[in-house]
Amino acid sequence: MRNEYETAVLSRILPSDAERVESHLMGQKLIDAVKEAAGVPAMITGSVARGTWVKGDKDIDVFMLFPPELSRDELQEKGLAAAYAVVEKFGGTSEEKYAEHPYLNAVIEGYDVDLVPCYNVASTAEMKCAVDRTPFHTRYLIDKIAPLKEDVLLLKQFCKGGGVYGSDHMTGGFSGYLCELLILHYGGFSNFMRAASKFRYGEVVDIEKYYPDKKAVRALFTDPLIVIDPTDKHRNVAAALTPTRFSEFMELARDYCEKPGACYFVPDAATTISKSEFTALLERRKTALYALSFKTPEYVADTVVPQLRKTMETIRSMLIKEEFQVHRSEVFMGPEHSIIIFELLVAELPNIIVREGPPVWNHTNADKFVEKYLHQEEFAGPWIFEDRYYTEVPRKYITAASLLEDRKKIFSGALGKHVRISMEEGYDVLCGSDIWSEEFSFSLSAYFARSSHAVRKMRQLCNE
Amino acid sequence: MRNEYETAVLSRILPSDAERVESHLMGQKLIDAVKEAAGVPAMITGSVARGTWVKGDKDIDVFMLFPPELSRDELQEKGLAAAYAVVEKFGGTSEEKYAEHPYLNAVIEGYDVDLVPCYNVASTAEMKCAVDRTPFHTRYLIDKIAPLKEDVLLLKQFCKGGGVYGSDHMTGGFSGYLCELLILHYGGFSNFMRAASKFRYGEVVDIEKYYPDKKAVRALFTDPLIVIDPTDKHRNVAAALTPTRFSEFMELARDYCEKPGACYFVPDAATTISKSEFTALLERRKTALYALSFKTPEYVADTVVPQLRKTMETIRSMLIKEEFQVHRSEVFMGPEHSIIIFELLVAELPNIIVREGPPVWNHTNADKFVEKYLHQEEFAGPWIFEDRYYTEVPRKYITAASLLEDRKKIFSGALGKHVRISMEEGYDVLCGSDIWSEEFSFSLSAYFARSSHAVRKMRQLCNE
Repeated sequence: MRNEYETAVLSRILPSDAERVESHLMGQKLIDAVKEAAGVPAMITGSVARGTWVKGDKDIDVFMLFPPELSRDELQEKGLAAAYAVVEKFGGTSEEKYAEHPYLNAVIEGYDVDLVPCYNVASTAEMKCAVDRTPFHTRYLIDKIAPLKEDVLLLKQFCKGGGVYGSDHMTGGFSGYLCELLILHYGGFSNFMRAASKFRYGEVVDIEKYYPDKKAVRALFTDPLIVIDPTDKHRNVAAALTPTRFSEFMELARDYCEKPGACYFVPDAATTISKSEFTALLERRKTALYALSFKTPEYVADTVVPQLRKTMETIRSMLIKEEFQVHRSEVFMGPEHSIIIFELLVAELPNIIVREGPPVWNHTNADKFVEKYLHQEEFAGPWIFEDRYYTEVPRKYITAASLLEDRKKIFSGALGKHVRISMEEGYDVLCGSDIWSEEFSFSLSAYFARSSHAVRKMRQLCNE
Repeated sequence: MRNEYETAVLSRILPSDAERVESHLMGQKLIDAVKEAAGVPAMITGSVARGTWVKGDKDIDVFMLFPPELSRDELQEKGLAAAYAVVEKFGGTSEEKYAEHPYLNAVIEGYDVDLVPCYNVASTAEMKCAVDRTPFHTRYLIDKIAPLKEDVLLLKQFCKGGGVYGSDHMTGGFSGYLCELLILHYGGFSNFMRAASKFRYGEVVDIEKYYPDKKAVRALFTDPLIVIDPTDKHRNVAAALTPTRFSEFMELARDYCEKPGACYFVPDAATTISKSEFTALLERRKTALYALSFKTPEYVADTVVPQLRKTMETIRSMLIKEEFQVHRSEVFMGPEHSIIIFELLVAELPNIIVREGPPVWNHTNADKFVEKYLHQEEFAGPWIFEDRYYTEVPRKYITAASLLEDRKKIFSGALGKHVRISMEEGYDVLCGSDIWSEEFSFSLSAYFARSSHAVRKMRQLCNE
């Protein structure tokens, strides 16, 4: 039983019969080409294999199944050679990419094709590398998911509309495989949505009943959602789903069940902010906005973004330790530059700070501390409170800018590897309206209008 | 073996033979007068009875021992009548005071005499009120402490010199009885000082060995110093000693053992601060100093000071919750006014604050929260982080003064009873140099020059 919005969405995203036939034929041609080039079987995996792709998506994943007797080097060498041969046969273009080992990403006859070498193992227990698992996903789902294809498409589109689709680090949301397993387990889109709206942290889905009960599963996994991989009982398919995205999805599902709407299936349009709007907003907030800006490291977002976040957390702790209160902080990775934003309550602090000294019963350190400050007459101290010495000393960082500009201080912390390298080449400390640039006009708009996906949908619903 | 400083101090504080005889005679006359007035025995307690008073102290405590058969009301009535009769006989002046029940504080022939009615019980197990214990202290110590009188005097004077003498709430230091027990246990001043310089939190002194070991004692008492009362195994004589004073004493003892000096036996002279010095100091610190000022409640310091401290803690928490960082805070009880001081890092904050909302799985509260802020467009939110909602809202208290002046807010907190009554009659919020007044010129000087007693002694030692 579909509601009007679901019916409408399906008519938009369900691939046509012609599209299905065409994709199927393309897949078969690629399998044949692999056989011809390398003498090994290949299989189509992912949404095309399982018929669960959204109309217009032209992504085909080809896994080339090499004998497990090959060494890693041989697999890599023979795999890439076969892939290049296939691309050449069709006159496509290609680029090498890296997961656990290199693979080829090609454009062939308008399709985005990944050609991935893996070992043709008999079971996941015999896996030699992580990609070996992928063919098993397709083998497991291909028949089971066939009657539920429409439901999978609805859930994928719902996740896309809610900004929670994709298991990359930037999104931390739902992968396609996860959507399919959830639909399979709950028996359809509506059933799953009703269940999800009542989810709690530590939800367990164990389709193949590998574990005696939920408690046994929760003893092994601490993620908010735990979906045991039917092809590998040691793996949580939802491991990449962050607590925030899990909560956001719950809220989207809850709101949708209560009052469905078309907007839930449409991704939000990104908004921008102009420099003058940005300046006006800062004046209204009266906070002190700072940004560290530097060249974006030449790695994929999945590598860079977690490093930016780590760097942000380190510097945020430094600011707080020096008594600069952080209202909010955020990272943005642009094509040219990356920025780490700190919005502070105040930019400048008084001339003194209380320094915590050693416990009095630690005689050596207590003596050192007292000796050091015995003849400072400028401020108060050292004094004892309970079991410890304290003293007032002149504050080192009177302004937040002086801390952020202190390269020695900043580089003394744990920063992400590639972010550190880029920052060591040079970084700028920007303040207030100088932070704005064309490159970040979308990101900064999102920063100031930050709200949960569910809240944004509800606002849209009010305007529909 | 006394050092030169101790010998010099003793010559100054040891009562003369004439003074001893005179005190003894005065005591005897008072005992006789009680017998004559009320027909009950009396005893002299405290330092005069035990010969452990500092030269020139003219305090005599007379405990009038009434039969335990009397009711509380009878004890009170007969006790006060007897006390008044005694005072009249000697032509003294007097004033009623209150501990657990009323007693008379009189001036008789130049002595400060307390006339305290209590029950003449056979053991502390039969005590009917707390003052019944005092005579047992004297009975226990009178012979044992006789050979150690000089050592007791040295310790008392050392405590006075170090600002840690007195078990009142304002000081939280060492009582006379505690000094005597410590000297008794450690066998003299020098032995005790060496021991004290190595003290750790949870030190145990159980002279009568009431408990099998220190562990058994620590299971019952959590104070930094635990001295089991030889007359009552359930009581820690050092219960009023605060952790801070305990640590300060340790440091004084440690420094004295390492490098003794005359200054350790001389209380620090109080310093004052002028209004112009006060103003200059504030400018140098660049902090934001605020004070709540109100009429001092008409109760003794032992009652008022803990209430001032409680009030300070409550308001301090309010400030911190509203994101005003407190550098230091303090209370001062003057004869006319009391002030509670808050030294803040900044006086003014930006227009926004992040409000923490309910967890998303609490559907009722989540709905209420989202509904409330759904159509606020001014600032960001509501958003989800991990399992909880947050939103930016306009800040209620932009200035610290507006919070401190908000009577409804201030009176919503847990304030000390008499302090609350006084504040409800009216309080002023003072800022910066307006806080200075003649009444607090000593206290404010101490605030800015705050340092531990041990540090002050070391500084004096450098100048000697």
